Amino acid sequence: MKSTTRRAHGFPRSPCPIANLLELVGDKWTLLVIRDMLRGRKTYGELLDSPERIPTNILADRLKRLMDAGLISRSAYQERPTRYAYALTEKGASLGEVLIALAQWGKAHIPGTLTVDEVAAGAGRGKGSGRPAATRRRSTRAG
Amino acid sequence: MKSTTRRAHGFPRSPCPIANLLELVGDKWTLLVIRDMLRGRKTYGELLDSPERIPTNILADRLKRLMDAGLISRSAYQERPTRYAYALTEKGASLGEVLIALAQWGKAHIPGTLTVDEVAAGAGRGKGSGRPAATRRRSTRAG
Repeated sequence: MKSTTRRAHGFPRSPCPIANLLELVGDKWTLLVIRDMLRGRKTYGELLDSPERIPTNILADRLKRLMDAGLISRSAYQERPTRYAYALTEKGASLGEVLIALAQWGKAHIPGTLTVDEVAAGAGRGKGSGRPAATRRRSTRAG
Repeated sequence: MKSTTRRAHGFPRSPCPIANLLELVGDKWTLLVIRDMLRGRKTYGELLDSPERIPTNILADRLKRLMDAGLISRSAYQERPTRYAYALTEKGASLGEVLIALAQWGKAHIPGTLTVDEVAAGAGRGKGSGRPAATRRRSTRAG
C-alpha cells in the first residue's frame, strides 16, 4: 500500500510543497549556506568561515546537494589547482523570502538574537569595550 | 578560541536568528508537525496519521522537543490510560508565517506539489476517475 501511494504522487514523502522543500533544506545548515551566499560569499573558503563554523564535510555535502537541486551553480575561477566560485541560481536566490520569514520569527521569539549584519555593525555589545578579540576578529570576516 | 566565542554570545552556534530557529525546527519533520497542528490535529494518533507517515519515534521526540521549547503544550483528555491533546502556544502558532513562506516557495519552484488542502479537495487528479483507492482513503483522513 505504501509504495503504491508513493508511486501515485511521485514525491519522496507527499505532494506537500512544505515537505518537498524540506527534502532540500530541512536541516540545520543548508539555509545558513544560502544566507551566506545571499550576503555575497562565493568561495568554499568564504563559506567555510561562517559564524556557525560549518564543518568541512557538511559544507561539501550541502554544496553538492544544492547544485544537484539547481539552487546554486559553480564556475572555476582558478586552474592548478582548480578552485570554484559558487553562485545562487534565480531559484536559489528566491529562498531569500524564506530566510526573511525565519529571521523575523527568530528575532521576535528568541531573545538576544542578532542578525549577521547586526553583529558586524557591533550591535548587542553591552560590556564596556565590547566582545573578546576572537569574536571581533571572526565577525569582521563574517561580515 | 571556539568555546570562548560560544560563551561570549551564549547561543549554541551563533546569535543569528535563523541559526537559532533552525536549532528548533531544522529537520525534515518538525515543521510538518506544526503544519498539521495548525490544521487542527491534536492527538498523537491524529498527528501520526500525517500524509508523510511520520515514524512514531520521531513524532514522540519532536513533540517532546516542541514542548521543551514552549511551542506546544499538552493536556490530558482521558485517564486510564492517560491520553494527551496537544495545542500550539501563541509562539508555536506564529510559525504559521514561516510555513506560508515555505509553502509559497515550494508551490512556485517544485512542479506538481499540492498543499494538503488541495489534496483533500481532489486537486491534481488527471487520470480518469482519479487516484487509487489507497491514496484516496489516506488523503481523506489526512486532509
